[in-house]
Amino acid sequence: MKCIKCKKTAEVELKSHNAAFCRDCFVEFFKNQVIKGIKKFKMFTDKDKLLVAVSGGKDSLTVWHVLNELGYKADGLFIDLGIDGFSEVAKKTTEAFAERLSAKLIVVDLKKEGLAIPDVVKKTRRVACAVCGQIKRYYFNMTALKYGYDVLITGHNLDDEVGRLFSNVLHWKMEYLKDQSPLLPAEDGLAKKAKPLWRLTEFETSVYAFFNDIDYVSISCPLSKNATFRSYKKHLNEIEFDSPGTKIDFYQGFLKNMLPVLSKKNESSIKNRCKICGYPTLADVCGVCRLKGLD
Amino acid sequence: MKCIKCKKTAEVELKSHNAAFCRDCFVEFFKNQVIKGIKKFKMFTDKDKLLVAVSGGKDSLTVWHVLNELGYKADGLFIDLGIDGFSEVAKKTTEAFAERLSAKLIVVDLKKEGLAIPDVVKKTRRVACAVCGQIKRYYFNMTALKYGYDVLITGHNLDDEVGRLFSNVLHWKMEYLKDQSPLLPAEDGLAKKAKPLWRLTEFETSVYAFFNDIDYVSISCPLSKNATFRSYKKHLNEIEFDSPGTKIDFYQGFLKNMLPVLSKKNESSIKNRCKICGYPTLADVCGVCRLKGLD
Repeated sequence: MKCIKCKKTAEVELKSHNAAFCRDCFVEFFKNQVIKGIKKFKMFTDKDKLLVAVSGGKDSLTVWHVLNELGYKADGLFIDLGIDGFSEVAKKTTEAFAERLSAKLIVVDLKKEGLAIPDVVKKTRRVACAVCGQIKRYYFNMTALKYGYDVLITGHNLDDEVGRLFSNVLHWKMEYLKDQSPLLPAEDGLAKKAKPLWRLTEFETSVYAFFNDIDYVSISCPLSKNATFRSYKKHLNEIEFDSPGTKIDFYQGFLKNMLPVLSKKNESSIKNRCKICGYPTLADVCGVCRLKGLD
Repeated sequence: MKCIKCKKTAEVELKSHNAAFCRDCFVEFFKNQVIKGIKKFKMFTDKDKLLVAVSGGKDSLTVWHVLNELGYKADGLFIDLGIDGFSEVAKKTTEAFAERLSAKLIVVDLKKEGLAIPDVVKKTRRVACAVCGQIKRYYFNMTALKYGYDVLITGHNLDDEVGRLFSNVLHWKMEYLKDQSPLLPAEDGLAKKAKPLWRLTEFETSVYAFFNDIDYVSISCPLSKNATFRSYKKHLNEIEFDSPGTKIDFYQGFLKNMLPVLSKKNESSIKNRCKICGYPTLADVCGVCRLKGLD
């Protein structure tokens, strides 16, 4: 197979794009998809102060890398979850990558905040991924606001977005569907959030990481057991295999046809603030401050 | 396992309803689900003149049978598609069943109309299921209007509706999504249409047919090759197996949360009429009259 750009031997085939690329042309293609994804939603410009939430995994290191390649200046934010045998590796990997990019890295240590994930899970008996997500979103947001970043960036790829969309559609979770845009504008108390990899699949992200020697953490979190979500991704992969392009169509169709219908109704952002930390909440005290107060 | 109603030995387990039933209690359950489905959408009353579209298959004979059991008087409409080795069997089966119910059966012979499906497929080179669906819908509608029926009834079950919903959602076909209600009201030129089995799965319908000795055509149409749709049903079956109740939640969630959002925009019924037959159409001559005119 030949690269459709330069006719050299292709190293990657992308059926959904009806294309095959050599190494260099694939990286070019990947960057162009990121540019397209950023422009489509006017996510940010090179004037903006960007903060990338980095876990040490493939997606977050890739988005940090590609933004750097495209000339954006982006700092990193690592949340140390306090999970033994996992968080140390993730932190070292992220620190080494920050050094490679000569980029600034902010580290939040959940142990010091009294919120190490294994402890919180033990206390609350809640599902680890749910409570961990809640705490991470909180610190992403608070850190971005505290240091005056214009945009908080995450490494979510097309498979993540489509998996979540699939789950939200199967159960018609209308409130969640409204928030399934690759760009969430800033609101009072909430930082602007962007997902520049929304057009790129998990596979494409892996290939980019491999071609760019990105040394990422490949072990899964030992607390993660999100089997339902994984099964949705499996079904979507099979459907994509039978009809290449279904994933991106599903997500783009949603963004184009569905999101505008839903957004019209959405005028009710949360006005109330946590009396301890100031985070938007429906209660007196926000969920994370309540977790901190648990014995 | 015991029947949850009468404590006799159960013959069917329904995980999505967290239930198991003996033969009699299952049939009772099935009838109650049909009653619930009819009431929820105020589909029709026993004063209405009902026409059931019957193909000779499990679903259409079942809906005809259960409506009869529930005291509704419903005539049948059989469209002879003119498919050799298939349509003769379907017709004989349907006629025998009409006799069993002592019900009137109207037969439309597509060969006489110059629209035998194999001929039309040959002429148009269109996908058989698409063109057959178009022609059947046309005659369902025209026959219901011609003989003054109040409601046209089809045997679509939950799996049919959910499979179609899944396909329409994956590609966000907004116009089709708007029409995915178990009840479509009458419009000028279009009969009222109802699907009383919308709450019942394919499995439940099969069990009802078996328990009631319904002798249906079990061979598939030799022209049908709808592999994509079948693959969607397979994925939905696997998801249902992992999380019983997902199918009905998916459809009911759609009806409750999504359909109202979509319907608000839908005020544009087709005003134009076919100048040959009077059927609603966007063109001068409707699709079926154009098919009749082909050489």
